[in-house]
Amino acid sequence: MTTIENSLSIFALGGVNEIGKNMYVLEVENDIVVIDCGSKFPDESLLGIDLIIQDISYLKENQEKIRGLVVTHGHEDHIGGIPYLLKQLNMPVYATRLTMGLIEIKLKEHRILRETEIHLIDSKSVLTFNSMKCTFFKTNHSIPDCLGIAFETPEGIIVHTGDFKFDLTPVNDEYADIHQMAEIGKNGVLVLLSESTNAERPGSTPSESLVGGHIEDAFRKANRKVFISTFASNVHRVQQVVDAAQKTNRKLALLGRSMVNVVSVAMEQGYLNVPEGMLIEAHEIGGMDPERVAILCTGSQGEPMAALSRLSSSNYRHASILPEDTVIFASSPIPGNERNVSKVIDNLYLLGAKVIYGSGSATGMHVSGHAQQEELKLMLTLMKPKYFIPIHGEYRMLHQHRQLAESVGIERENIFIINNGDVVDVNNSLARQTRKIPSGNIFVDGLGIGDVGNMVLRDRKLLSEDGMIVIVITLSKSDGEIITGPDTISRGFVYARDSEELMNEINQLVITTVNTTRSSSGNQRSVLKQSVKATLGKFLYTKTKKRPMILPIIIEV
Amino acid sequence: MTTIENSLSIFALGGVNEIGKNMYVLEVENDIVVIDCGSKFPDESLLGIDLIIQDISYLKENQEKIRGLVVTHGHEDHIGGIPYLLKQLNMPVYATRLTMGLIEIKLKEHRILRETEIHLIDSKSVLTFNSMKCTFFKTNHSIPDCLGIAFETPEGIIVHTGDFKFDLTPVNDEYADIHQMAEIGKNGVLVLLSESTNAERPGSTPSESLVGGHIEDAFRKANRKVFISTFASNVHRVQQVVDAAQKTNRKLALLGRSMVNVVSVAMEQGYLNVPEGMLIEAHEIGGMDPERVAILCTGSQGEPMAALSRLSSSNYRHASILPEDTVIFASSPIPGNERNVSKVIDNLYLLGAKVIYGSGSATGMHVSGHAQQEELKLMLTLMKPKYFIPIHGEYRMLHQHRQLAESVGIERENIFIINNGDVVDVNNSLARQTRKIPSGNIFVDGLGIGDVGNMVLRDRKLLSEDGMIVIVITLSKSDGEIITGPDTISRGFVYARDSEELMNEINQLVITTVNTTRSSSGNQRSVLKQSVKATLGKFLYTKTKKRPMILPIIIEV
Repeated sequence: MTTIENSLSIFALGGVNEIGKNMYVLEVENDIVVIDCGSKFPDESLLGIDLIIQDISYLKENQEKIRGLVVTHGHEDHIGGIPYLLKQLNMPVYATRLTMGLIEIKLKEHRILRETEIHLIDSKSVLTFNSMKCTFFKTNHSIPDCLGIAFETPEGIIVHTGDFKFDLTPVNDEYADIHQMAEIGKNGVLVLLSESTNAERPGSTPSESLVGGHIEDAFRKANRKVFISTFASNVHRVQQVVDAAQKTNRKLALLGRSMVNVVSVAMEQGYLNVPEGMLIEAHEIGGMDPERVAILCTGSQGEPMAALSRLSSSNYRHASILPEDTVIFASSPIPGNERNVSKVIDNLYLLGAKVIYGSGSATGMHVSGHAQQEELKLMLTLMKPKYFIPIHGEYRMLHQHRQLAESVGIERENIFIINNGDVVDVNNSLARQTRKIPSGNIFVDGLGIGDVGNMVLRDRKLLSEDGMIVIVITLSKSDGEIITGPDTISRGFVYARDSEELMNEINQLVITTVNTTRSSSGNQRSVLKQSVKATLGKFLYTKTKKRPMILPIIIEV
Repeated sequence: MTTIENSLSIFALGGVNEIGKNMYVLEVENDIVVIDCGSKFPDESLLGIDLIIQDISYLKENQEKIRGLVVTHGHEDHIGGIPYLLKQLNMPVYATRLTMGLIEIKLKEHRILRETEIHLIDSKSVLTFNSMKCTFFKTNHSIPDCLGIAFETPEGIIVHTGDFKFDLTPVNDEYADIHQMAEIGKNGVLVLLSESTNAERPGSTPSESLVGGHIEDAFRKANRKVFISTFASNVHRVQQVVDAAQKTNRKLALLGRSMVNVVSVAMEQGYLNVPEGMLIEAHEIGGMDPERVAILCTGSQGEPMAALSRLSSSNYRHASILPEDTVIFASSPIPGNERNVSKVIDNLYLLGAKVIYGSGSATGMHVSGHAQQEELKLMLTLMKPKYFIPIHGEYRMLHQHRQLAESVGIERENIFIINNGDVVDVNNSLARQTRKIPSGNIFVDGLGIGDVGNMVLRDRKLLSEDGMIVIVITLSKSDGEIITGPDTISRGFVYARDSEELMNEINQLVITTVNTTRSSSGNQRSVLKQSVKATLGKFLYTKTKKRPMILPIIIEV
């Protein structure tokens, strides 16, 4: 666990062994640069939790070294944690225009836009943070304006790919800087950090531009309204929807808050070309010839509150899906969302719509934004890294990425599969996993950050499955006799009005237990409570096979 | 909504517009026959619910007409509800040997085996229920001993396929009765009810026998222990695992309760040929040469308590997965289980295992047991039904199945996509959807059946997300002054010890509210409670963006 002389340190505070909350840190001499600050959505076991962010205690302790946050692109798992980070640790933020536009929406919502120091960059920018020089290269991904980063350090070059794919026929001629990547890698980089999302998938991802033709065909075939749903941030996909609408002579309406937000940012900044007069408002849809309208909406993942889900249950104010309308899912369900997506599809069919869905590539309406195996090998080959750290993926993806790296000639002992918080120290001839710094999941729960711990989550879990019973009883301080009660309140256990008999049995049992305990162990409230809890818990489990939380409240007056 | 003269009635009490809890009913003159009685697993929104079964109030009301329950095969979605049905409505049960063996396990658990009237049948059986004659045909599926049913009625033949695929090279020579199906359909059947699970998938399912070769290859390549996980009830898959173990000279251990149960039933009844001395006990694994052992286990869906999940987290008593062991998923994740499966795979890689996984057909380790589009069309063609009711599937699957039926020449107006409870009346020249009978989801919650309603579920949901706060306050009966309290108990909201300040604010607010309310509206407890709830709810939402359940308890002494 000794450190390495003249070394720099690399670690993740989020993003390895998980999908989400990406945050990577590079520490060279007295300078720390933070790369990305994403959030992660909780799975269903984290009851009531809104968002997961990083443990940044290391950054707080080394505040004086921090030179800034460099953001690779504008997806939630790379920017969603920024407001929470900046509220605790103000630092300059470096991002490209579109990325910054999306960050600014968040900073506004959190009312910290004004005090944030913002630096727009592009792929030609050069940043210098004392010991590090920072250059960039353009990549392709499912959102425009993505960057990979090359850090020139005294020990060598450290490359962070961000999210990427290789799209040789990109939409809007947004080519990746392959020559620049080759230039960076020509003499070999010291450490490559490369994303692993699709490391399990053989071959290469199809080009985004293939999707456009399929959308246009579907628009042409549809003889009534067409609804199409995709991620708002996939601006190139949106561009292709706009193009298809134009070619098939349809006006376009945008439904869903994030769709409206992102499209307006992207249009303002020139990432999206929308012909004059093409966009219509939602309330205008009803008055138009159905054959002349297309509707681009949120909800491709079946999110219950998003536009498409509400449309599918005829619960959207300004628009409705009618028989023979066409609905296109330009997306693939993210693991965990399959059931929600299926529900929406069922409802759409019930409305009489024609639905185009299925795992994206099957319909031609979706391609992935993440490099598959052949592309990952191309990146590894271009960069020729001495050391390799697969990032951005669950363990099996990192593991597969390691195998790909070995297949292109990187030595196994030079590949580091790390956990969040594992520090890799590197100098020009040596790399070693050394110390471990604090890392983990911080829960955002309403306005509370990090204040919900295991106790509270455990209680939520118990309450969610078996509910609870509150038993109130008043005892006389002088002689310990029961004055009022027991009164029993049940919530989430059984419906008290339907279970009068059970409630009576509970009350009887509580009286007996209190009296017995008093005569054997005295009047101590904690003893009485414990005894009521234990006796009642056992009784209820035998009677119902449920274990409600039992809260005995004993008042002495 | 008038009924049809001389008609018979067909309806589902479960199984349409859903996957699970299959139950179809045929009512001819004064005779009712029930087909299958499955259960359904609740999705994560049904907090605390163990199982979903059918609303059988119609059957209870027509008890005297019921002639029996005929079971097509032994999967949970066809037999899981039987104990609950029989406890309320005893009736004779007809099933093949393996199916009955699996039913008996359930009846024993529920202690109703002795009072149940059991009739073993096979594909040659002929049953007569007054107005109906019942014959059978063998089908292929992912469990042996599956039947389709042909009911000869005064109006014509009604066919129920059960679950099926067409496997022309089945394991153990368990051929489907295609000739029998052709014979039944020769003169056309009146109504066909056919399963729709894979109606979205083009082509045909591969044969189960293809899986065997892949398993054997993997067993041969493995130079240490091999773990393989599949559904226990897939006896033909299990047979192929046994065969592969034998060919590669490995002993076989069975891990997981359902694997041990089902294999022993299947062996007893001759559905499974296991060579003498091949099976070993779990505790013997450790003492064996790793190259000479295979382990067949439950947990292919990532179920947290199943053998494979526990093995993957090194939490299984008698066996452990070591580096270089091989683990095979002979399965595809069922929608909704992807995350659990992924977690298990990650853990297996962390243990250093070689893992063979992926959507089943990609690895060759799994094939579906349900007919795909070409097979569904073959069934429709064999049966030549006048009327068609697609069953066993969510709406989009029924919808696709209707399209397939139309493509082979069935008139659209003769196809009925029904909901559970919709009754289709049919005679030899007419079919019409007429009345609606009670149907729906009955929740099994611990020992309670149907006693958990929306109120309780809503409370569980609230409690699961935002927890609760109990506030106890004692007032003087004489002058309404506060005697004790307020005392605040928080569960699942915030951890009270970490939030002393908030707790103090809450108590202060409660005192103020009680005093203000008393002076303005008097001492009525319900008014005081309402006022505390409203004021505190508002305060807490502003302060925390959470809405805990608030239970004010006001005691007067």
